[in-house]
Amino acid sequence: MAKKAKRLTPILPRGFVDRDPDEIIAVDAMIHRIKAVYERYGFDPLETPLFEYTESLGKFLPDTDRPNAGVFSLQDDDEQWMSLRYDLTAPLARYFAQNFETLPKPFRSYRQGYVFRNEKPGPGRFRQFMQFDADSVGAPDPAADAEMCMMMADVMDELGLSGKFVVRVNNRKVLDGVLAAAGLADDTNTSLIVLRAIDKMDRLGIDGVKLLLGEGREDDSGDFTKGAGLNEEQINRILAYVTADADDANLFDVLAEQVGDNEQGQQGVAELKEMQALFDAAGYSRDKVKIDPSVVRGLEYYTGPVFEAELTFPVTNEKGQTVIFGSVGGGGRYDGLVSRFRAEAVPATGFSIGVSRLAHALQLVGELGNKERFGPVVVLIMDKDQIANYQKMVAELRAAGVRAELYLGQSKNMGKQMKYADRRNAPAVVIEGSEERDAGEVQVKDLVAGKIASKDITDNAEWRAARPAQVSVKRENLVEHLKSLIEQNETQSN
Amino acid sequence: MAKKAKRLTPILPRGFVDRDPDEIIAVDAMIHRIKAVYERYGFDPLETPLFEYTESLGKFLPDTDRPNAGVFSLQDDDEQWMSLRYDLTAPLARYFAQNFETLPKPFRSYRQGYVFRNEKPGPGRFRQFMQFDADSVGAPDPAADAEMCMMMADVMDELGLSGKFVVRVNNRKVLDGVLAAAGLADDTNTSLIVLRAIDKMDRLGIDGVKLLLGEGREDDSGDFTKGAGLNEEQINRILAYVTADADDANLFDVLAEQVGDNEQGQQGVAELKEMQALFDAAGYSRDKVKIDPSVVRGLEYYTGPVFEAELTFPVTNEKGQTVIFGSVGGGGRYDGLVSRFRAEAVPATGFSIGVSRLAHALQLVGELGNKERFGPVVVLIMDKDQIANYQKMVAELRAAGVRAELYLGQSKNMGKQMKYADRRNAPAVVIEGSEERDAGEVQVKDLVAGKIASKDITDNAEWRAARPAQVSVKRENLVEHLKSLIEQNETQSN
Repeated sequence: MAKKAKRLTPILPRGFVDRDPDEIIAVDAMIHRIKAVYERYGFDPLETPLFEYTESLGKFLPDTDRPNAGVFSLQDDDEQWMSLRYDLTAPLARYFAQNFETLPKPFRSYRQGYVFRNEKPGPGRFRQFMQFDADSVGAPDPAADAEMCMMMADVMDELGLSGKFVVRVNNRKVLDGVLAAAGLADDTNTSLIVLRAIDKMDRLGIDGVKLLLGEGREDDSGDFTKGAGLNEEQINRILAYVTADADDANLFDVLAEQVGDNEQGQQGVAELKEMQALFDAAGYSRDKVKIDPSVVRGLEYYTGPVFEAELTFPVTNEKGQTVIFGSVGGGGRYDGLVSRFRAEAVPATGFSIGVSRLAHALQLVGELGNKERFGPVVVLIMDKDQIANYQKMVAELRAAGVRAELYLGQSKNMGKQMKYADRRNAPAVVIEGSEERDAGEVQVKDLVAGKIASKDITDNAEWRAARPAQVSVKRENLVEHLKSLIEQNETQSN
Repeated sequence: MAKKAKRLTPILPRGFVDRDPDEIIAVDAMIHRIKAVYERYGFDPLETPLFEYTESLGKFLPDTDRPNAGVFSLQDDDEQWMSLRYDLTAPLARYFAQNFETLPKPFRSYRQGYVFRNEKPGPGRFRQFMQFDADSVGAPDPAADAEMCMMMADVMDELGLSGKFVVRVNNRKVLDGVLAAAGLADDTNTSLIVLRAIDKMDRLGIDGVKLLLGEGREDDSGDFTKGAGLNEEQINRILAYVTADADDANLFDVLAEQVGDNEQGQQGVAELKEMQALFDAAGYSRDKVKIDPSVVRGLEYYTGPVFEAELTFPVTNEKGQTVIFGSVGGGGRYDGLVSRFRAEAVPATGFSIGVSRLAHALQLVGELGNKERFGPVVVLIMDKDQIANYQKMVAELRAAGVRAELYLGQSKNMGKQMKYADRRNAPAVVIEGSEERDAGEVQVKDLVAGKIASKDITDNAEWRAARPAQVSVKRENLVEHLKSLIEQNETQSN
């Protein structure tokens, strides 16, 4: 400590943020409500650590000395690469494989925690952010996928978003069938480019996607993205599928025709049909959960049904345009992820909610529980030799369940102490000078009523004479007086 | 996914662990109770991200290409080193300095989260673990330190540890005074070695510490640790201080004599005296909070009062010896930490609780809330073409607040389904075959009562005839029946 180091600048690395009390409390309450839904569906909590071996996470295997593209990685003492998890699905696959013998199957878990992306941060894009996932591992039937969609819908309802969301559902097998029908059956590389092009529909519109399916597209900045190189017939076939009318009563017939006699495609259509029957039986109407061919999801590892929870209310984006709020989470079936660790196939399905994004949406619609939060009662220090006495008052209040504290700041001047109480949004301050003490009394100043009363007082002397909302209370009645004062203030403000 | 990669081994890097449902639920409940105490004291939540610039964290400045000693560090795109936080105090100092203008002073916050140590893991020593801290920044008086000690005591009481803990309090200034009186006034290097030697008293006993204060000590494995090199008089002076009888009614006089005329030492004694007066006034007796010269704390940055919450009940250690459980948290005053970022001095005090260690202690004394947790009701699949119908039952149960799920596993054979329900600790299963369906009924099997009843049945045929704890219920009464069954089971088991 004695070293005369250069003065440091107190800042965070780019893409990382602090969270203040209001945000923490509101998001905790939101998470609590989501958790209640997951629990009701029979899911149990699970937590994996933030580090995994890089190769366990897959996709981002180290091919350079320091594989820092996309993930945060570092080399352990024993030369092995480890990485901070970039989602909560890859660690689940590792966990399930590791505990295969002892886990019930299907294994139903929910997992909440931070994930990390070593990417360029931007507005609303952070390098550390929270996800809240639910997954069924070892569940092969479309009924498991349907359950995921219904649970996402229940979460949205639970959070007060009824009528403001839709869960859109599609199936990768149908998309694969369409690609096969377009003559791209075994071309996984081109298929992946097509998939990613379709996933950009929201942002680029149909014309942009068309270019990406063909020769390629030049963006506003002049950068050129090479396309999938499809011919016009192929492009039309794919676009016809993606833009198929989700409200068409004969949607399944349309899709069946589009996949032609491709077996996988037909299986995909059958799965969607089965899911629709389950939605109908459980009373999830199409304004809540809807089969929609335009949903593809960006992640490579999906193998069957995919789904996305979308908020449908309008917001203004950074460019000042009115757009719908859009996705707050999604997921799908990933039957291949666990078999990276084990010989047998392990079918699995699940979804992930982006916690900050959902919290932001709730804030916009006034459902984040933004009610005023009061600070503690502050007991002021009038006489320094009475600290033990003031401390005792505070202890009494706390024992009675009243948030309370002794003013412990550097300057003991009255103005500083009052300013502190104001900043803490204290409901009241307690003042005991020698006069009060001799009379067995304390002064209690109601800061909420005081703020209202002092609005009408313009003169300083007048204020002092009136002492708005300040009363003398018998010392032995202090606790009861403050309890009812706080109760009153809370009722009034919320 | 199509790539034929080598089969991966599903394991975690050393020193990292998964957390199962029982642990998560019990620790969450514990954290909730601790939080209630912090809130009552007027502290508010705060959260900082897991990464900080390495130099903001201090102490572990990168002096090599990859500064991985003690902390996990990596270099960002802009060449700057960033590290995963190793405690929650250094990030708080950065946060306070960064938001100095807008924060109330004192700034009272509590912070819960993971910290990381890049060390060799061992039994009970992990590389990722959770801390739960509370701090007052900008609070110069011993009253703030006293408050921390009382809050630690209240946390222990709140968790059901009354009579099983003591918060021990000392002051670095007194220790510094004793070192000065021993002629080590300006030798910070030797002082640090002395400090760390004393901190090992628990483990090495007085003879071991004596060796470390002198020439050095050879451990069981033959490794030699160089000592502080003090002479006998110096050693005796320091040991007399550390082993001073904490129960001595004249303790403060003894300490005053030991620091001699060293001003800082005298100030330290006066601060301890003031804290004792506050403990007395607030009714914290010496079996809860106790001034004790043997407490030093390992961290270098403490500048005044230091304290440690110690659990006093006996446990058996790895070597089979009976020892007291020991420290579950501690803290102290660190007036120099924020001034690394700012010109002015910013006095601060706080403490940290080791969450897993405290949870482990609670488990040992049966206070972790280890009550039996039931899984969901499982609706079995008897006819595959009735899934939509079963799904509807499940939806009804959930809507009524009953945890429920449809069996979604791979094999639909009855034995597998029953085994699954057992593994999930389901309170009951629901069975509807075509016969029941035609009669407008369902079979409900009470798995808790069933386990008890089947203990007396040894024969398989007898079991089938008796069908213990299985009843027919009208379909429309299913929800009500299960609700009361669950209520009964929960009352019986806890």
